Amino acid sequence: MAAVLTAVPLIEKHRETLDKALEAIRTREYWSPYPEHPKAYADAETGKAAFDALHGTRFDLGQPGTDGWTGCEVSPYGIELGVEYPHPDVDALLPAMRAAMPAWREAGPETRALVCLEILARINARTTEMAHAVMHTSGQAFMMAFQAGGPHAQDRGLEAVTYAYAEQVRTPGAAEWTKPQGKRDPLVLRKAFTAVPRGVALVIGCNTFPTWNGYPGLFASLATGNPVLVKPHPRAVLPLALTVRIAREVLAETGFDPNLVCLAAERPGEGLAKTLALRPEIRIIDYTGSTAFGDWLEANARQAQVYTEKAGVNTVLIDSTDDYKGLLSNLAFSLSLYSGQMCTTPQNFLIPRDGVATDAGHKSFDEVTADLAAAVSGLLGDDARANALLGALVNPDVKARLEAAASLGEVALASREVANPEFPGAVVRTPLMVKLDGAKPDDEAAYMSECFGPVSFAVAVDSTDDALDLLRRTVREKGAMTVGAYTTSPEVERKAEEVCLEEAAQLSLNLTGGVYVNQTAAFSDFHGSGGNPAANAALCDGAFVANRFRVIEVRRPA
Amino acid sequence: MAAVLTAVPLIEKHRETLDKALEAIRTREYWSPYPEHPKAYADAETGKAAFDALHGTRFDLGQPGTDGWTGCEVSPYGIELGVEYPHPDVDALLPAMRAAMPAWREAGPETRALVCLEILARINARTTEMAHAVMHTSGQAFMMAFQAGGPHAQDRGLEAVTYAYAEQVRTPGAAEWTKPQGKRDPLVLRKAFTAVPRGVALVIGCNTFPTWNGYPGLFASLATGNPVLVKPHPRAVLPLALTVRIAREVLAETGFDPNLVCLAAERPGEGLAKTLALRPEIRIIDYTGSTAFGDWLEANARQAQVYTEKAGVNTVLIDSTDDYKGLLSNLAFSLSLYSGQMCTTPQNFLIPRDGVATDAGHKSFDEVTADLAAAVSGLLGDDARANALLGALVNPDVKARLEAAASLGEVALASREVANPEFPGAVVRTPLMVKLDGAKPDDEAAYMSECFGPVSFAVAVDSTDDALDLLRRTVREKGAMTVGAYTTSPEVERKAEEVCLEEAAQLSLNLTGGVYVNQTAAFSDFHGSGGNPAANAALCDGAFVANRFRVIEVRRPA
Repeated sequence: MAAVLTAVPLIEKHRETLDKALEAIRTREYWSPYPEHPKAYADAETGKAAFDALHGTRFDLGQPGTDGWTGCEVSPYGIELGVEYPHPDVDALLPAMRAAMPAWREAGPETRALVCLEILARINARTTEMAHAVMHTSGQAFMMAFQAGGPHAQDRGLEAVTYAYAEQVRTPGAAEWTKPQGKRDPLVLRKAFTAVPRGVALVIGCNTFPTWNGYPGLFASLATGNPVLVKPHPRAVLPLALTVRIAREVLAETGFDPNLVCLAAERPGEGLAKTLALRPEIRIIDYTGSTAFGDWLEANARQAQVYTEKAGVNTVLIDSTDDYKGLLSNLAFSLSLYSGQMCTTPQNFLIPRDGVATDAGHKSFDEVTADLAAAVSGLLGDDARANALLGALVNPDVKARLEAAASLGEVALASREVANPEFPGAVVRTPLMVKLDGAKPDDEAAYMSECFGPVSFAVAVDSTDDALDLLRRTVREKGAMTVGAYTTSPEVERKAEEVCLEEAAQLSLNLTGGVYVNQTAAFSDFHGSGGNPAANAALCDGAFVANRFRVIEVRRPA
Repeated sequence: MAAVLTAVPLIEKHRETLDKALEAIRTREYWSPYPEHPKAYADAETGKAAFDALHGTRFDLGQPGTDGWTGCEVSPYGIELGVEYPHPDVDALLPAMRAAMPAWREAGPETRALVCLEILARINARTTEMAHAVMHTSGQAFMMAFQAGGPHAQDRGLEAVTYAYAEQVRTPGAAEWTKPQGKRDPLVLRKAFTAVPRGVALVIGCNTFPTWNGYPGLFASLATGNPVLVKPHPRAVLPLALTVRIAREVLAETGFDPNLVCLAAERPGEGLAKTLALRPEIRIIDYTGSTAFGDWLEANARQAQVYTEKAGVNTVLIDSTDDYKGLLSNLAFSLSLYSGQMCTTPQNFLIPRDGVATDAGHKSFDEVTADLAAAVSGLLGDDARANALLGALVNPDVKARLEAAASLGEVALASREVANPEFPGAVVRTPLMVKLDGAKPDDEAAYMSECFGPVSFAVAVDSTDDALDLLRRTVREKGAMTVGAYTTSPEVERKAEEVCLEEAAQLSLNLTGGVYVNQTAAFSDFHGSGGNPAANAALCDGAFVANRFRVIEVRRPA
């Protein structure tokens, strides 16, 4: 195999990184091979031009079974991208992908991991270009698109490769089995164990985090031997098309079939994900998006292993604090970042109606709410800073939802329009906060649903115990990607932990500094738990990779 | 917690065994802590009396929520057991089981593993009693009931505990995360990681191997923190009732709630498995049995992780051999053991119609078939030996299927009735072999269905390549727990391996000695692959345990 020719250089280039990553998932201490600072990147000066040069082009990937071209991306910043992508004839493309499997399986776990690391290294080298592509499809501000769409997404991809590698090498490639038989000769067998892929894996991308949410499934499936078909969100094709192109280049250069990674761009309104999800060749699906479609996939794509991240209602419980200022600034940032369009952004603030004890004195429900509103307003008072934090609303649905939410209750913080001089077409809005009453049945429909976008609810509760009950019910019924809690009471802390352990939600306690409830770090933090309705898997753990392959044993007498 | 009091003795008693088991699943070399010889057991002399003493008794487990008594086991050897078991009021029992969860979760992975090892040690000490219980519910002959129902089942239970422990400790209990911030102070978080259970696990037992097929799910779920409700097959309650009683004793003695393991015996025709499987409290299901009910569970018990072992069609391909005598005696034993009532027994022998090359000269299809029939007849010619190998037919369905199968084609080996002087009520039959033609569409319905019991088909195929195609189609469409192949050709060997790697079937090559295609050894062989329709999981691997728990992180500023 041609791949063998490149194995030694790839080992020299990437084995040490893989070993460090293996150590990182074991200790879960801080680690990342990919710098966060734009200046660290070779394409810092050229990336923007590379992105600009893509506008209005036909993005040819050389895939088999292309029956036309499609593309209608318009940046949330108002620019029409005008890129056309290949539209697949699925009946031709899927067999070509299946044909690529045997050689990739034979390559074994280490070579597959090293090839994946080379793909990630090439993506990393083009982080600036990718940042612009993520920015102009998701509406993230540049710095966030750079970090979350670049090194942080690459971290999550590498983490998935690392788990996949570790899982496959738990079983040795070969064993000699010698069973004593008393005075007779022992029974002796030679056994060979091979990790085999399930089939073609489908990644269904999302609009807001095409790379960050796409890479874990893509790399977990590829590293375990499966060809991967990437079906991007029609508004966020470019970042994944670039990713697919780089992956195909690396696969071809290392002697493998580039059809191990293909793109499936869809025509407007085609619903291609649904068609693909039911194809018998598709044996793994990774999906990020609405609960409705995630539930549909879980119920209907029965021939596949389905990993979903869906909607949830994230809660922050405020009982007491010894750093009121830190609490306010931390939460103000969490609410503002990417206009609350993160699956991890807090939505419901549960605050006792009698108020909370703080280092700045007792604060009533209305005071906490007003102070939080003021903190957000202060953070976003300067338009340049507001634009840099908020980005743009990703699509008209978010804007409509934001506008409708203002009538749900008393507005504690009104949303305002922010002008973006660089991109006049961008729709930029500051967060809205609405007061609701946890004791009013009429308010429940609002705070017990995900209102995706820059909308949060300050929910008055009777007591901290009442808040804990509501937290439990919210996680159990609606799911949560994140839970936050602020308290100086060891007992409340213990109770909040107990709720989160019992309902399987990830808990951040007393964050008042530079770490935010909506951010997780690969190799250390789990994203989601896989144990509540918001997601059936976590990024990344053994369960995320273990069932993407099977181990086949061939045994014979020695 | 009381459990802490016993932690040190349990570590002294069992930690070394756990460590050896961890090493065994890593090397997959031969290992077992449980002897196979009846004389090695303390209850060798007393086990039969202990079993006899159970007849006609009420098997009280002290479980909450018992609303009556039920039991109607009649041994396949003709003895009415007359044991009555508690029938559960599910609405009372399930909440009691859930209430037991927090302390068991808090005990952590090591204590849970050690308690499981103590349960297994107590079961092991009563292996003779258990052997009689397995014999008189499954119809296995005593020696098989002893080994497969005793040490081999305990091996599989320990293997599941070992994988569960390893999986949970992959993530550390705590980590300090320090992220550099250039010239500013680093961000520092303390993180705690806890393996949390999913909820109540349901084990749905089978008639033929109540302990061997029941223990992996039972111990995998218990070791990962879940309470386990055992719903035995109504004809095979006693072995699992004994198991539950022992588990409850050990749990109580080690300071845990005995309701972590409960029995759910059903009334005749009640269909309790279906009711339980849809309860929201049930979050994990392990099932061995028919494809119809397994498929129903996978489709309907959507709130649970469902692990199924269903029907399959096991194939042996005969291309050529350099040990014709060994081939015949090996396959004759495989067909005879427990009257072919193993999910791993070969059913279809694919033999080229032009015959096969052997060390005893060329053998035509008819000669191979006749020689195999003669080998079985020779092995079972003596009634005492026949009884010791065949055991009894487990239920009237198997007998009816056997009788109907004789009309499917030309009978190559007729089934005969064997008298059992010790148990005149036992229904004992030797294996039937029927000739079919792989080229005749009319024969396909027979060889493409599982005919569970002492029935096999000698299928004439046009060539070895034709056999390989049929093997592939059989595994893909019907599934297989085992595949066997005999060949002296490296090319055929390679092709058979390729089919099994692509269709995810476990392959045994050229077995001619004392290892049989229908036997697998814990810690080394995988039972099933989880990648073809016969089973969606393998015993035992990371995928079998990884999704029985979730990891919850609590992070706070350091």
